[in-house]
Amino acid sequence: MRYKFHAESMNIVDFIAARRDGLAHPAEALQEFARLVAMKDAIGDDQVAAWLMAAFLNPLTSRETADLTRAMALSGEILELEGLPKPWVDKHSTGGVGDKTTLVLLPLLAACGLTMVKMSGRGLGITGGTVDKLESIPGFRMDLTPAEMIDQAGKIGLAITGQTPNLAPADKRLYAIRDVTATIASVPLIVSSILSKKLAGGAEKLVLDVKCGSGAFMTTLPEAQILARALVDTANQAGLPTVAAITDMNQPLGSAVGNALEVREAMRVLENSNNLNGPEQRFRELCLDLGAETLYFAGKTRSEEEGRRIAEEALTTGVAAQKALEWIEAQSGKPYDSESLPSVHQFTLEARRSGWLRRVDAGAIGRVALDLGAGRKQKSDTVDLAVGLRVLKSVGDEVLAGEPLVEVYPRGSFDEAALRQAFEIVDMEIAPTPAILERLH
Amino acid sequence: MRYKFHAESMNIVDFIAARRDGLAHPAEALQEFARLVAMKDAIGDDQVAAWLMAAFLNPLTSRETADLTRAMALSGEILELEGLPKPWVDKHSTGGVGDKTTLVLLPLLAACGLTMVKMSGRGLGITGGTVDKLESIPGFRMDLTPAEMIDQAGKIGLAITGQTPNLAPADKRLYAIRDVTATIASVPLIVSSILSKKLAGGAEKLVLDVKCGSGAFMTTLPEAQILARALVDTANQAGLPTVAAITDMNQPLGSAVGNALEVREAMRVLENSNNLNGPEQRFRELCLDLGAETLYFAGKTRSEEEGRRIAEEALTTGVAAQKALEWIEAQSGKPYDSESLPSVHQFTLEARRSGWLRRVDAGAIGRVALDLGAGRKQKSDTVDLAVGLRVLKSVGDEVLAGEPLVEVYPRGSFDEAALRQAFEIVDMEIAPTPAILERLH
Repeated sequence: MRYKFHAESMNIVDFIAARRDGLAHPAEALQEFARLVAMKDAIGDDQVAAWLMAAFLNPLTSRETADLTRAMALSGEILELEGLPKPWVDKHSTGGVGDKTTLVLLPLLAACGLTMVKMSGRGLGITGGTVDKLESIPGFRMDLTPAEMIDQAGKIGLAITGQTPNLAPADKRLYAIRDVTATIASVPLIVSSILSKKLAGGAEKLVLDVKCGSGAFMTTLPEAQILARALVDTANQAGLPTVAAITDMNQPLGSAVGNALEVREAMRVLENSNNLNGPEQRFRELCLDLGAETLYFAGKTRSEEEGRRIAEEALTTGVAAQKALEWIEAQSGKPYDSESLPSVHQFTLEARRSGWLRRVDAGAIGRVALDLGAGRKQKSDTVDLAVGLRVLKSVGDEVLAGEPLVEVYPRGSFDEAALRQAFEIVDMEIAPTPAILERLH
Repeated sequence: MRYKFHAESMNIVDFIAARRDGLAHPAEALQEFARLVAMKDAIGDDQVAAWLMAAFLNPLTSRETADLTRAMALSGEILELEGLPKPWVDKHSTGGVGDKTTLVLLPLLAACGLTMVKMSGRGLGITGGTVDKLESIPGFRMDLTPAEMIDQAGKIGLAITGQTPNLAPADKRLYAIRDVTATIASVPLIVSSILSKKLAGGAEKLVLDVKCGSGAFMTTLPEAQILARALVDTANQAGLPTVAAITDMNQPLGSAVGNALEVREAMRVLENSNNLNGPEQRFRELCLDLGAETLYFAGKTRSEEEGRRIAEEALTTGVAAQKALEWIEAQSGKPYDSESLPSVHQFTLEARRSGWLRRVDAGAIGRVALDLGAGRKQKSDTVDLAVGLRVLKSVGDEVLAGEPLVEVYPRGSFDEAALRQAFEIVDMEIAPTPAILERLH
């Protein structure tokens, strides 16, 4: 059942009542709603909040979610990428502990001929943000204007910026209100929030990395599957062809957790270092897998296998590393030198017993990193770019008593007991966890 | 299932989430919520609105409704009636077209020895307000302070005032937000809103008149029964002994609809005029029935029959009329003279055919009165105290072609066709509708 709707005279109370009563919102009503939300003074925060709670309890259908997504994207500026070499690809992660995939994938895929254009955010809670990470490179600008983005992407094939205030302003306001009204955890609202910014970002294709585990928003596989399915279906319905991978976030991704440390790790992978530790190798594999999938999905190769070969070649020939250096230069960063990044002296935590690692708890490690100052407890907090950890072992690794488990880079003291709790060593052999748990398209 | 609650550190987002998830609110949580709502700056309108929508979709239990009612009453001043002769009775109507019962019942019952203390409101939409009606008596003050109320009730047994801003301030804010967020029509929220003001008004016993029909908020008997039952149960649970009657509002109550016109009608009933028309007699009967019930319920008589006899005596002996005059004088009104009330010249609408009245539509007549200016379409509108209608016939009456059906007191032109539509005359005999449809205690 649909309620009557007249765009020229939309009554917001009727619109709220329709959601309350589970009546379907026509696309034009959602478009008008997003327009009013973006106008700020047209409807009250109380009206937005009432609608959000009604939408939480009577969730939007997949058609409505796609319509709202489009409507929120249209509530502000749309990045116009016409003229750039195709395909234009965006990559998005739902966020996790030590997730520096973007830092590798962007130059790697640009080196393989894709045009990578990405808007990114700052970190909050245990989840790091790409903006913070890149800012640990002295001078690196994360405030490119849309025009600068397009210009740079045209020249070197990739560009990244912090989200501009003019993209999807309706989402900005909805998110701020959801944050204080217990309406965050609604899949259709999460999906439309993520995708509206992606649509506004102008890309032609999207690759999603949905993190799953103790260090992510979705802690269980069934939850992650629901979110990933909704993201892929809605994006495709909203006209943005999208694939997704659900990836493991029960243990940190790679070795480094902390901003400058993660940049160093990403650069070591890009430079094809032959001296990667176990977690770093696992991270490199994930980058190659996601890279291969993206190249095939973007139509650049005839198979994933071919994608994988090309991506690996970009690493081994140094083309990817070269692209990364060009990128840093283009965004005004000081020529890359791992020594010039912020740093503090390290402290090593050793295994107290021998055995196999059953658990390397990403959530616990994320909280230690947060306490060290690597992340923000509140939006207004400042991030310490130098601090963090380097986890040296992965789940399934065999360790010997006395062997280093993790390096800590603290500014002052830290909670050693909490960090030790994150590692569980058992007597029986444990199988390693795959990095990619599932793929959706 | 109950969620954990710590009064010293109530997290409002957790409180909203509890309602969202259908967890029971402990009494202390509702008390803290009402306190924060009344503080205005402690929680945002968006948070209040999200809770209201959650409470609309996951309705409060009867225990929670009673707790919220008490909490809202405690959010502001409480009228302290100690010292006044007992019993102290309050009377409340859910509002209808031509409902001037308060104007009769207050002096009538004060004349019978009850202490009647009442806070009243202004009209909105087709529903009139006692404040507006009494203001058509020149000089009548509706702004008595609590101290003046108590002083006057001590001297003459009755007092009325417009609601003061300090009573149940939490309700005031909740109501304003419900009004714009499609969360008005929730029985527990309606109930707690009405009763919080009654509790704060300090009375010992409450008599409720729940109107039912086209001229009332509840248009069908099942709806009215649900509201009346919830009101009676919640009031009793919250410590305010209460009885209710569901009364007919498919046709206007009495003859007059419009402020000064209704005051005149009430005075004619109080003066025991032997010249009442049909609808006026029906109104007089309702006053005597409700009066009898109140006297018995308040413990003043041993039976309703005795109550009825005493109330009738107060009318026939002139004691009630005398009390009304004292009342007007006490509240600074000009000595009563029906000629000194605002008036406009009248226009009479006659029946076009003979037959029996099947319908005298209170809703339609209320809308005509509203268009005449007798009520407010918006809160900010001004009421024309002189205009209105006098309906001369009730459902079931036989009428002859050419016989007057209704007198109109317009300021200018009016929609005669709409008014005529309110009356349906049929060929078969129709039974009159009882004024009281049901009683609850």
